[in-house]
Parts: sequence; structure tokens; C-alpha cells
Amino acid sequence: MKNKILKELIKIVDKKNVSADKIDLLHYAYDATQNMYLPDFVVFPENTEQISHILKLCTEYKVPIVPRGAGTGFSGGSLPISGGICLSLEKMNKILEIDTENLVAHVEAGVINYDLREETEKFGLLYPPDPSSYKYCTIGGNVAENAGGPRAVKYGVTKNYILGMELVFPTGEIVISGSKNMKDVAGYNLKDLMIGSEGTLAIITKLFLKLIPLPPYRSVLQATFSDMKEAAQTVSNIIADKVTPSALEFIDGPCIRAIEDYLHIGLPKEAQAMLIIECDGMKESVEAELSLIEKVCAKNNAQHVKRAKDKKEEEVLWKARRSISPSLNRIRDGKLNEDVVVPRASLPQMIASIQEISKKYNLPIVNFGHAGDGNIHTNIMFNKGSDEEKRAKDVMKEIFETVIEMGGSISGEHGIGITKQDFLEKQLGKETIDIFKRIKKALDPYNILNPHKMKLC
Amino acid sequence: MKNKILKELIKIVDKKNVSADKIDLLHYAYDATQNMYLPDFVVFPENTEQISHILKLCTEYKVPIVPRGAGTGFSGGSLPISGGICLSLEKMNKILEIDTENLVAHVEAGVINYDLREETEKFGLLYPPDPSSYKYCTIGGNVAENAGGPRAVKYGVTKNYILGMELVFPTGEIVISGSKNMKDVAGYNLKDLMIGSEGTLAIITKLFLKLIPLPPYRSVLQATFSDMKEAAQTVSNIIADKVTPSALEFIDGPCIRAIEDYLHIGLPKEAQAMLIIECDGMKESVEAELSLIEKVCAKNNAQHVKRAKDKKEEEVLWKARRSISPSLNRIRDGKLNEDVVVPRASLPQMIASIQEISKKYNLPIVNFGHAGDGNIHTNIMFNKGSDEEKRAKDVMKEIFETVIEMGGSISGEHGIGITKQDFLEKQLGKETIDIFKRIKKALDPYNILNPHKMKLC
Repeated sequence: MKNKILKELIKIVDKKNVSADKIDLLHYAYDATQNMYLPDFVVFPENTEQISHILKLCTEYKVPIVPRGAGTGFSGGSLPISGGICLSLEKMNKILEIDTENLVAHVEAGVINYDLREETEKFGLLYPPDPSSYKYCTIGGNVAENAGGPRAVKYGVTKNYILGMELVFPTGEIVISGSKNMKDVAGYNLKDLMIGSEGTLAIITKLFLKLIPLPPYRSVLQATFSDMKEAAQTVSNIIADKVTPSALEFIDGPCIRAIEDYLHIGLPKEAQAMLIIECDGMKESVEAELSLIEKVCAKNNAQHVKRAKDKKEEEVLWKARRSISPSLNRIRDGKLNEDVVVPRASLPQMIASIQEISKKYNLPIVNFGHAGDGNIHTNIMFNKGSDEEKRAKDVMKEIFETVIEMGGSISGEHGIGITKQDFLEKQLGKETIDIFKRIKKALDPYNILNPHKMKLC
Repeated sequence: MKNKILKELIKIVDKKNVSADKIDLLHYAYDATQNMYLPDFVVFPENTEQISHILKLCTEYKVPIVPRGAGTGFSGGSLPISGGICLSLEKMNKILEIDTENLVAHVEAGVINYDLREETEKFGLLYPPDPSSYKYCTIGGNVAENAGGPRAVKYGVTKNYILGMELVFPTGEIVISGSKNMKDVAGYNLKDLMIGSEGTLAIITKLFLKLIPLPPYRSVLQATFSDMKEAAQTVSNIIADKVTPSALEFIDGPCIRAIEDYLHIGLPKEAQAMLIIECDGMKESVEAELSLIEKVCAKNNAQHVKRAKDKKEEEVLWKARRSISPSLNRIRDGKLNEDVVVPRASLPQMIASIQEISKKYNLPIVNFGHAGDGNIHTNIMFNKGSDEEKRAKDVMKEIFETVIEMGGSISGEHGIGITKQDFLEKQLGKETIDIFKRIKKALDPYNILNPHKMKLC
């Protein structure tokens, strides 16, 4: 049977674009969760028609197939947990058009976020979504998970920039939903159903992306606090004061110390929290907004507030933010990284609850993230193989329960995949999951596309 | 049978909230298309649970049911074309909360757009979507059609402000999709599938709406042109120059003359086109943007460019824009009002094509609308009962074909309903319609919810 599938795949994509060799397969077995599942084949289609043929083949022979961008996901969306075919979009990586009159980019799904950013900036344009993995991750993967990033607080998440997409359904239909048009209400909004569906409903092959003018000016400030609650309160006050920074990032005390030990850039190791706040736009409004923000920081007893005085100082601050993940290894060798979200004004309460849970289970929990959206990356630290490992899972469960209780969500931008699927029904209720299953069944009747994710079967 | 249904409805909503009286039914038989279809019953549920019971009843007895906001739609979405139940949301019109910390409104679906606008402004907040019917239309109806309005060019359409919704599915399930959270990727994005689904997939009962700070300053200018193409080119140039006005409205020559004859406000009757351009934000940036726009107007040979010097002059301009519909009766007593859309830069070409079609069929066509989005309201004028009436339908068909050929859409903000359903497959293709039908069937297995709309059966 495997041989028959392989022959059929070769017929569709040519020998050079398919492999069943174990060494090759190993490269496509992992993602950022550090779990590993070997697929039986990896294929590299070069166009949409090939993908349609592959999906028809999978539906005919009931072969599982999992689309893959760059494998940077944190929830297991691209892991081939049932074997079958890994469908890598890496050869569909062309920027087809930057339409400077309509401010639209037309790209294949395998384009790297960074490559698109570089190309659009040449024209004075910006594609805002900026997940931390932007140097490697693909636009198609960003859409499948509805990725966010620091800029989301002002510019919104991936969803806000998707004007249209080309899709291939599990039964082989090629459908274009949306277009270059700024408005379009002809028929069901398929494209938005696909955004965040984690590759379980259709394979996204091409995208029309909305671009915006590159803001002419930006400036960053750093504020440190001796009390985490005061930092969280500062975030709530900024939002309530109707200022919208282009980034409003939060880093807690243990995280500051881990970064400083790692980078030695002069961060205050005694601080309990730090905010990195960027504003962009016309110079006059940026300066006015930052002045107001400085006042809010002072009102909330900030220890130290400092504007980056040049690009170099800005870059140091952003480097600190991006270096959190490698820094954390100094605390423990294992971590559970969750991206919970609550309504923005509930941030102080959420941070306080996480601190209590940390004490209760006697495990360090390190928090950082997109505070302006109420979206915090909470890292439960443990030593691998010790009894801390089991406690870490109990901590995760209690944090999820607390977040759901507060009207929050177990994922702001990483998705459900396999790592959070046991908690999805708890958040959404059985009736909602049943509606999801009816949609999944309607579009993927034989459950071949990224099966056994999100507890949909 | 009718008596049995009536008795059951009375059990669910009480006698005071249901009627089968013809005089009552007549009030719920029409919408802005001026078509009329009598329902068998009209019910006025007061809460979500009642709606769930009504839908279960409809699924059990296979009774068609059509949700209705204020009946201001232009495509027949709320018309009970198969009889059955008109479900009016007018008693579910409460603003449940204006959450000034999270910048979120929580409302019932029957809230009037204008009432929400008034309430949010008290807190210095803005709910941007502003369809022309904002004084009467409901938020639920706006969501069902994904309504736009002049502000959409800067602030986006209804979809951009929907954080969460409560839904009741035809089989009775009550589901909450989304929340007050700014980001949420837990599970399928049901809410966005519902936006623009024209009441065919579920009944929307409550909404979490994103609010934004009320811009502190705004200013409006009017520019007139002797050549329609130059006005259209001005619009394209403004967008390409990376300026985003808060309104960029286009009015053609016949339309200017109709308004002037109706209002006598001193509009230049010899002009072939007029733009109304508003910018909002910080005063400094508004002034800078309008100066740049004035230069673009001059470069494109504008006859006359004038900034409104006070609120009164602004109001006159907006009154002119809102008076277009009643003014047009002076040209002919009948009109077909379509809201086609093309990629923004193709606007000059679309306007030119419509003018050619007008000449070819010897029928006046009057154009106005949201030029900044490439979304034009094109009005094919005819005398009712004359041979012009049939020609008008041929003109509509040719305009739709031209728009589709240009990569546009047959509807930017009015929806498909019954008036445009014959053209939907032409735009989207049969495979797309088949996917729509599979979703419809999965969620509404007995086709009771707003049946026979959008050519889905």
C-alpha cells in the first residue's frame, strides 16, 4: 500500500518532490513543541493543482495528510501524529505581486514572513503581523494559527490583513475566497473560517494580503517597577486613557534577571517588572503619546522610565525581549509555555493569580508577553525527569481553569493543536465542539486532513 | 397545522409576543428592496432561550423562519419569501454594558446603530461602522450583512469590530463564539463565518463589540471636477499616496444636479463629479493630510476645492450625501441600486465602463458611494412599467459581468439575498457554491433558517 501511494505521489509531483527516506522524514517530524512524529512521506508540491491531486488521492485511499509551513508552531499543528503525508509548502514561496496602487500583496502560502517584510518595506509599505519567529515562519502557517506578535496591540493579528485566499479542500476542490477588493460580501466568509483552523479544514495555497503605509516615525521607552501589580495596572491605565502604542510588552522580575544574566546589558536585576512600550505614526503624535505614557508610569510608581535615544538603544531593548526564550534555560531545563489571554483590564488580577499558583505548587513561573492585548506567555519551569515535571502539568491545568473562570481564553495566538486539546471543551462547552465537528465532517468527510487535532474526533 | 404552531409559539414567548394578524404581518413583509412577502407569524422573543425553543420547534415541524432587524436591507435578506415565521429582534434591544476599561460594548442584537453611537460617545468612544441607515438599522442586521459605510475606508467594516457573539443554531444549540478578549484562537472562528451569512446559518442574539477612542478632531473638504475620470484618478492617487481619509465619498454629475434641485444648497450644477473627503485624528496630522489631498486634487485639475470652515458647513456636505436617494426620484420613478466593488485602483476604469453601458442601453445611470474602498452605488434609473424596466435588468447584468471580469465583486456591503443570487455562481464558481451548500446543510439540516436565499438550494 505504501508503495502504491508513493508511486501515485511521484506521478503527481515528480520524483524530485517526494521522499520516504527516513533521514528526510526526520526533518519534518518535529515543531517548536519538541514533540516528534514521523510521517510516512514528505511531498513538496510546486503548485495548487498538484495539491488538489494529492488531496484527492488522500481522500480516495484514506491517507492522513498534514500541511506544514516552517514547523515553528507551539501547539503541534504541523505534527504528523497519525503518520501519512507531510505536505511541505516550502517550494510555494513566491511573492507574486506587490500591488502598490491597491496596497495589496499576492503571495504563495510558503513565503517567509521576514521575506515579505523586506520586500514590502522597499515600497514604503508594511505587513504588520510580526510573530517572534518572523525570520523563519511562513505566511500560510501564520494564517492557519492566526498568529499575533507585539504589533497586534495596535495593528491587530494576521486575520486583519487577509483579503483573500486560494484554498484546496480535502475532496480536491480549488476555491478562491475573497480578492483584492477592500469589501466583499458575496457569499459565505470561508476565508475567515479558515484563519485559525490549524490546517484541519483546507490547505491554504495563495493569499491576498492587505498592506499599510510604513509609519514615518517610531520611538520606544522602557519602564521598570518594584511591584508587578503596578506594572500591570500601568498597562490597564494606558488602554483606558485611549492611547494605542504599537507595542506594549510586559516582562516580569525572574525574566528580567534571566535576560540580564544571559546578555549583560544593564537591566535592573532588582526590578519586579519591566514594560517595553513603542509608539509609531507622525512624529508629533508619537511624542505626545509617549509623554502621556510617561505620566501614567510615574503615577503607578515606576522606578525608572527611559526613552531609547537612538536606533541602537531601541535595538538593545528589542533584543532583550527576543532573548527571553534562550535565557530561561538558566532557571530550569524544562518549561511549559502557554499563551493565555484575558480581557485587558483583568491583567493585574491574572498576574496575581499566577503568582499564587506558583507559590502553591512551589514551582517558578515566568511571565512575559503582549500585555496590551491581555495576552501573556506564562512559562512553568521544571527540571526534566524530576517530580517537578508532573507538578508543572497540574499548574498548567490550574492556570487554564483560572483563565477560563475570568472569561479569558487558553490561547491568544499559538492555537490548540495537540497540546491544549484536552482543555478546549472546558472553555467552549460541548455544544460548540459539536458544531465544530459538523463543519469538519462537512468539509473533510473522511477525516484525512490533519486528523486528531483540536479533539475533533 | 398553523394553529398548532401558533399555540406552541404562544407557549414559548407568551401571547403578547406573537401575532398572526394580517395588519401586523404587513409591517414585517417588506424591506428596502420594496418587495413584499407575508410571513404567517411574527414573533418578538425577549431572550436567547426563547429563540432556541422557537428554532427547535421550526426544525421539528419544518417551518421556515427568517430573522429580522429593522428591514433596511437592500438585497432581501430579511424577506420571508417562503412564509413561515418572521423573528423580529426588536425587543432584544438592550445595551448591556459599555466596558470603558476594555473598550468593549456588550449589546443585544436588536440595538439600533444610532443608539449605540449616542451611548458610546458619552464615554469618548466610537463604534465606527456607519451604514447610511444608521438611524434605524440594528447591529444584528449590520453583522448579518457585514455592513459598511463612509468610515469603512479608514476604520473597516462591521467585521472588524466583532469580538464575540452569542448564536442560536437552527437545531437549537446556544453557542458563544469569541469574547471580550482582544485575541482568541481557541477553536474554529465561527463568529466570522456568521458575519455576512445573511441570517442563513444561525441567529445572532448578542454581541461583544470593539470600541475605539473617539478621534479628537476632524475636517472635511469638497472638491468638484469637470471630468469624472479625473475625480476617480484623484481617489486612486490619494490611496497610492498612503493617506487614509476617514471618508472618501464620490458623487457623479447627474447625482450633483439631482441633489441641488432637491436641496438648493449651491452645489455647482455644471460639475461632472464631486468628492467629499474627511480626515480625522490629531489636529496636526489631519491638517497635514488635507493639505496633501488638496495638492492631489489640484494635480488632477479639480475645478474647485473647499474646506468646510465650521460644523455647519460640514453638516451641509454630509446632508447632501445622505439626500441622494430621495433626490434621485426626480430623474426616474424606478431604480435598481447595486453596490458593486472593484480593487481601488480600478475605479476610473469601472466608472468609464458604466458610462459606456449607460450610453449603449440609453438609460441614465447615477453613481455615488465609497470610492476610497472601490465600492460604488450604481443606480440604474427607469420609468416603472415602461420598456426601460426590462432594459434596466439587462444593464444590471452587463454591469455585474464587467465587475466580475475586473476582479471585483457584485456586492461590497449590501449582500446577495434574493436580488443578486442569480449572479453569485458566476462570480464564485460552482465548486465554491457547493462548499457553501455543505456548510449550510451541516448547520441547518432541514433548511428552515432563511431558506431559498443566496441560491443555496
